[in-house]
Amino acid sequence: MPKKSAGLILKPRWRIVRGAETALGPGRVDLLEHIAETGSLRSAAARMEMSYMRAWTMVRSLNSRFRRPLVEAVRGGKTGGGARLTEMGRAVVVSYRKMEMQSQKAVKGTWEKLQRLLQP
Amino acid sequence: MPKKSAGLILKPRWRIVRGAETALGPGRVDLLEHIAETGSLRSAAARMEMSYMRAWTMVRSLNSRFRRPLVEAVRGGKTGGGARLTEMGRAVVVSYRKMEMQSQKAVKGTWEKLQRLLQP
Repeated sequence: MPKKSAGLILKPRWRIVRGAETALGPGRVDLLEHIAETGSLRSAAARMEMSYMRAWTMVRSLNSRFRRPLVEAVRGGKTGGGARLTEMGRAVVVSYRKMEMQSQKAVKGTWEKLQRLLQP
Repeated sequence: MPKKSAGLILKPRWRIVRGAETALGPGRVDLLEHIAETGSLRSAAARMEMSYMRAWTMVRSLNSRFRRPLVEAVRGGKTGGGARLTEMGRAVVVSYRKMEMQSQKAVKGTWEKLQRLLQP
């Protein structure tokens, strides 16, 4: 049996769509996680090499597509304000990452077979 | 419990990557299926609203990434030549579609939960 191909990665890129519009996908989930980690929309945008305006538009779109906002502003304090995930925001990230893990596990055997067809 | 959101679709878009390069993704698999159905690279490209050149480049790239070509030319005959999937080409499409089905099944419960957080 040939050796498995080196450096090949299988990525599930789950996308929730309605018609031509994407409600949630890997980029938006990454943005939510960066907001959670940095406490700042500006820092999260910078980490993703994305303009602040683009990140802000993504957050506004996310907030409008869910039953309650996923991101909220934090005003005042020493840092002069920031952003954080709401309880619903955290729940959405957890569910999305769970789907990734569940699906990686489910396809393991098929992926191993497919991998053997690829150039090493 | 709120009703499920209407018109929302969850799509697994599996991508096999090596570094920054994509070896296989949903677009290439669609192209392979269209070639199998039409017996022609030109018709497959037209169905995907893609230029012939772009489709040809995708096929050349696919053929080089797998241990054996996925698509082969069919010369002669009344139709003046066409394209078809090799045995390996068919195996790759079957495995990819199988991964999609396996992963949809695996995430069903989590997706139902996530769906209830979205605007109906």
